[in-house]
Amino acid sequence: MEIIALDNYNIHVGNIQQSLQALLGQRSYSQVLVLTDTNTAEHCLPVLKSYLPKQQLNIIQIPAGEQHKHIETCQLIWKQMMELGTDRKALLINLGGGVIGDMGGFCASTFKRGLDFIQIPTTLLSQVDASIGGKLGIDFMKVKNSIGLFNNPQAVFIDPVFLQTLPFREIRSGFAEIIKHSLIADYDQWVMIRQISDLKGQNWASFLVPSLKIKQRIVEEDPFEKGLRKALNFGHTIGHAIEGHALETSQPLLHGEAIAIGFICESYLAHKQTGLQRSDLEEIGTFIQQIYQPKALEERYFDEYLHLMGNDKKNEGKAINFTLIKATGEAVINQTASAEMIVESLRFYNDFIRKTH
Amino acid sequence: MEIIALDNYNIHVGNIQQSLQALLGQRSYSQVLVLTDTNTAEHCLPVLKSYLPKQQLNIIQIPAGEQHKHIETCQLIWKQMMELGTDRKALLINLGGGVIGDMGGFCASTFKRGLDFIQIPTTLLSQVDASIGGKLGIDFMKVKNSIGLFNNPQAVFIDPVFLQTLPFREIRSGFAEIIKHSLIADYDQWVMIRQISDLKGQNWASFLVPSLKIKQRIVEEDPFEKGLRKALNFGHTIGHAIEGHALETSQPLLHGEAIAIGFICESYLAHKQTGLQRSDLEEIGTFIQQIYQPKALEERYFDEYLHLMGNDKKNEGKAINFTLIKATGEAVINQTASAEMIVESLRFYNDFIRKTH
Repeated sequence: MEIIALDNYNIHVGNIQQSLQALLGQRSYSQVLVLTDTNTAEHCLPVLKSYLPKQQLNIIQIPAGEQHKHIETCQLIWKQMMELGTDRKALLINLGGGVIGDMGGFCASTFKRGLDFIQIPTTLLSQVDASIGGKLGIDFMKVKNSIGLFNNPQAVFIDPVFLQTLPFREIRSGFAEIIKHSLIADYDQWVMIRQISDLKGQNWASFLVPSLKIKQRIVEEDPFEKGLRKALNFGHTIGHAIEGHALETSQPLLHGEAIAIGFICESYLAHKQTGLQRSDLEEIGTFIQQIYQPKALEERYFDEYLHLMGNDKKNEGKAINFTLIKATGEAVINQTASAEMIVESLRFYNDFIRKTH
Repeated sequence: MEIIALDNYNIHVGNIQQSLQALLGQRSYSQVLVLTDTNTAEHCLPVLKSYLPKQQLNIIQIPAGEQHKHIETCQLIWKQMMELGTDRKALLINLGGGVIGDMGGFCASTFKRGLDFIQIPTTLLSQVDASIGGKLGIDFMKVKNSIGLFNNPQAVFIDPVFLQTLPFREIRSGFAEIIKHSLIADYDQWVMIRQISDLKGQNWASFLVPSLKIKQRIVEEDPFEKGLRKALNFGHTIGHAIEGHALETSQPLLHGEAIAIGFICESYLAHKQTGLQRSDLEEIGTFIQQIYQPKALEERYFDEYLHLMGNDKKNEGKAINFTLIKATGEAVINQTASAEMIVESLRFYNDFIRKTH
């Protein structure tokens, strides 16, 4: 068991049974609720129940998937809390991936003006990304996380046991955030990561705690994303737009799959605008290509992508905001790019993956 | 112009033109939005525009009334912000009564995880009550303010000019909070108030600043309602239930009209449980009767009232929480009452107003 101590709460990494029992024992919650989705109800809830055999748990279950991360699902959650007579002294345990954590945290923070919640992220993506930083929310009008707030959980519990039943595609999606942390802030880790040719054979879990610590350092210096924290947006301006659009099609992309495409496009912008060397751009592109085998983007959707980028939270005024990199391991925030340059980067991506396919 | 300085922001009382212009001049907001309803668009927006002749204002208008204080209206507001390209550096001005302030503040605090907002309350109720304390939110499943959060505005601007066009019934509704502040915390003010026999002839505005200062003192000692602040809930447990229920009928009650009924019922509980003298109970009842001429409550709705009280935010576990008074000017928090006792208080109210009619 490793404990990462943040300013206001702890992240427990390892077998979480003891520390979870300890937290519930210390506090006299009026009620303990567990938010699950159809997947985590099957694969993760039995483990949680075995960890807490004496605890009475009230289960709220919602459909799985990013397409349900919207205000209508919040209303289902609030309605069940209302029907269960949930009060402000209750605790909500969010058992699931980023959707459950973001949406459950938002619902807990707004129900009767706020009750305590803890996060038990069950995907690699949510373990490495959503567990630090207090960003909560839902998608609105296809724009990711556009309704939400900042609020911290009482604690985060990261247990590798939950990853055992996770499909490989989900592991790979989560690994994108580990790649990102190295690209924006840790050259040495990037050097280790870029040697991976096949994720399946690797001990990718060894990157988890170092990666959490990179994020911790960044978030604690800038909790409300006034500056430094924007470094974490690398790959996300274009990636979010691609993800938001794909969500509406018959072939939705996982978050990490979309931002992996974003890494290539935004590395191209970085090469053109902030001095990233051509060789680094190619190295990033080749690595992403190898791990993710992404598909080409259709030109007819480019305008839609630009429109979605125009509504991104990170923008100020009309300019589209980017975090780029100067070099591998070094982010540069508050960059912008013209629509033409963005389209150029999308075309570069298409050419690059066709060439190396 | 009087300024009440709170911990994090100021309340400006008087002609607000200069201080409003000064605030907008000091900060470079990317966009200034004004939330109005159909009433304030007609009666208050022209005044605001005359105060800010050089400012470009983006107007978001919603239907007037508590029956629109719900998540669907929030979605209309967020949608318009999205369509206007609103970013996190924008400012939302909430121009209206409590519904506009509570709901607009909630929408601003959650859009792209939060932008600045200022409150310009235009009813007596919102000027004396909603302008202090940072409580934001909406109604959900008929339960008042059950979804929301705590967040402070950048400033509050209270201008008597907006009350000139307010119907008398609205003035009288707002006056209920002034009565409450005296009953829970200022015996001397209660002595002055109880002498009023007809609100129309009185200089009720003279009570505004003293009343704001009572609320300021209470809220600053307990911003998150852990203890003392609950004093402000006097009359509201029963009052909210009556209001919530009336909202669904053809004869909705204004907030102050409902809590005025709550004062009588909860003073009865206070007489039975916390030592309020019979003579004080009668004095409060007679005064409320004189000012509000409230109607009897139908017995067939009593179960529904109890059900609504059961879902009140203030409850912990299954008990229904009340703030009562020990004497006029002295609140006592964290009280409960049995369903039987609550029904008894509703019947006392009915008998009392029938007798004195």
